[in-house]
Amino acid sequence: MNAIAVERGETEPSLLDVPEPTPDEGEALLRTLRVGIDGTDFEVLDGNHGGFPAGDEYQILGHEAVCAVADPNGTDLTEGELVVPTVRRPAEGSREFFDRGEPDMAPPGTYRERGIEGAHGFMAEFVTTPAEFLVPIPDAFAETGVLIEPMSNTVKALELAFASRSLFEWEPERALVLGNGPLGLLTLAMLQPTVERSYCLGRRDRPDPTIDIIEEFGATYVDSRTTPVSDIADIHEPMDLVYEATGHAKHAYDTIDVLAPNGVGVLLGIPTEWTFDIDGGCLHRELVLGNKALLGSVNSNIRHFETAKESLESLPDWVLERIITDVYSPTELEAAFDDSPDRIKRVIDFT
Amino acid sequence: MNAIAVERGETEPSLLDVPEPTPDEGEALLRTLRVGIDGTDFEVLDGNHGGFPAGDEYQILGHEAVCAVADPNGTDLTEGELVVPTVRRPAEGSREFFDRGEPDMAPPGTYRERGIEGAHGFMAEFVTTPAEFLVPIPDAFAETGVLIEPMSNTVKALELAFASRSLFEWEPERALVLGNGPLGLLTLAMLQPTVERSYCLGRRDRPDPTIDIIEEFGATYVDSRTTPVSDIADIHEPMDLVYEATGHAKHAYDTIDVLAPNGVGVLLGIPTEWTFDIDGGCLHRELVLGNKALLGSVNSNIRHFETAKESLESLPDWVLERIITDVYSPTELEAAFDDSPDRIKRVIDFT
Repeated sequence: MNAIAVERGETEPSLLDVPEPTPDEGEALLRTLRVGIDGTDFEVLDGNHGGFPAGDEYQILGHEAVCAVADPNGTDLTEGELVVPTVRRPAEGSREFFDRGEPDMAPPGTYRERGIEGAHGFMAEFVTTPAEFLVPIPDAFAETGVLIEPMSNTVKALELAFASRSLFEWEPERALVLGNGPLGLLTLAMLQPTVERSYCLGRRDRPDPTIDIIEEFGATYVDSRTTPVSDIADIHEPMDLVYEATGHAKHAYDTIDVLAPNGVGVLLGIPTEWTFDIDGGCLHRELVLGNKALLGSVNSNIRHFETAKESLESLPDWVLERIITDVYSPTELEAAFDDSPDRIKRVIDFT
Repeated sequence: MNAIAVERGETEPSLLDVPEPTPDEGEALLRTLRVGIDGTDFEVLDGNHGGFPAGDEYQILGHEAVCAVADPNGTDLTEGELVVPTVRRPAEGSREFFDRGEPDMAPPGTYRERGIEGAHGFMAEFVTTPAEFLVPIPDAFAETGVLIEPMSNTVKALELAFASRSLFEWEPERALVLGNGPLGLLTLAMLQPTVERSYCLGRRDRPDPTIDIIEEFGATYVDSRTTPVSDIADIHEPMDLVYEATGHAKHAYDTIDVLAPNGVGVLLGIPTEWTFDIDGGCLHRELVLGNKALLGSVNSNIRHFETAKESLESLPDWVLERIITDVYSPTELEAAFDDSPDRIKRVIDFT
């Protein structure tokens, strides 16, 4: 069958002919419909994540998928039913966090991640997955369901943010999203019912489709080339909530300055080493005197996928149409993985 | 009456003769029994906090007090009843956070702090305070009740820490307290029923009374001169909970490295400006991939004082006896404010 993978030693994806997988007991055989491409896929191509699946000379990419059940194989699933698979799987002998439904909280080393680290992803005509890691979705989400996985990460991050502020009265009015990629834009969309004013940071010139979407929400586009993050509180206003999805490490520390008293910044980017100066005294003081919080958040669990499914249902059609900008067949690999700025969410369609 | 205050332009406390205060409507007149000295008093002496009370050439110190009601003045209090006053008072026209019982969450500029910023403290023979800012305590706490205010800050900080981890299974087994001052030692004591193993950081040579207390708890003393905070996870173990009470800004960032996955660091120190290098990329990555949290926490509200009162009741007698090491009369100012390492909590006794 066709699969999009990175071969050992390569940094570009290839279309490979690989054996069709056979489901083990408890696993369903799935026919892949669509798989989204995101920043993590490029990190995998660059070798910034963990190892390849044991014994294999290639890693199949893709962790944002919508599939149809091809063979329930004795599970409770129904042939033809649509599902979204979660990403993490237990490493050998490490089921503790999975058994309690919290694979997203499992410590590094105790899990593998489909399409990212130590396990093949979903960019293949067929995949197998234990039924416990599948979230059934309505047929209406066949085309847009690829957004459920990224949205589930935001659901979890925002849940953590709200929990950290749950002991006092806290109703965020102003939110800043750092990053205007697909995850940033989806988060901006998800925040609209909650906050009164929102801002989204990018580094793009107009005309630009992401700026158009930001402004269609009534949100304010902030160009990081002219407005450094540390100046946003003065130039615009302090923020109750900051969501970081850039992986630009300085943003994590600048977030402390942008936050209003009692605010929370939630970080999702995964940068590599970078040493720089900070006024660590002032930032520490700000955190304390302002009762501020900085939270890291990674991955998500089934409950977050379920909430993301509801959240996807409530997004306006125009958002979905304008975020999923490009759909490619597996043979159009080069175009699909070409990172030009006029495209937002790119999707591989296997049907 | 006698009052211990810092006069404008000075950095040492003086014993002044000041007019006895007259209670306004809703205020009780209190006779001060004991007032604790802590690091914040030295910061006030150094001019690191806000301004003096409007129109005065001196600031009366002290924010950790036990008082007896001298004149209820029409409030619900009873003459002779013991009380602990809270610290924050509303600034002109800023009652919002006070009205909802959350003065500790009030933004800078909307409050004054007794003995710290813009309002006289409790180091005087008599003080007045609105009844709403008084926490009645049992007579048995006449001598130890000065610990309720500092303990209330820990109650709040730990509440915030637990709330931030409340959406997943989290039972901290290992805690590290940064700082072996009175607040650090009290926090170490308060954590004993919760965690299995605890550590406390200081920079003292043996024999030292704080190290003796740490080890009496069965906790491990960590000397920051030989074991930098960033090495603690490797040399000892990663920590589920880190409580910072040093005001040493580098500790805030090193905390991220010390934390185990899903751990939380809570910061209470209030450093001044200090620019230094950090590997901001790795720390940001650690926060995210480890689902870690860093929280600032300042001040506390009546509810935290009530919990601190219960917590004080549950502390072993030996802890209280060995933490309150020195009791001085107001005329022994110089000795009381001399910062020698063999003394832990020093208290001024006005009776």
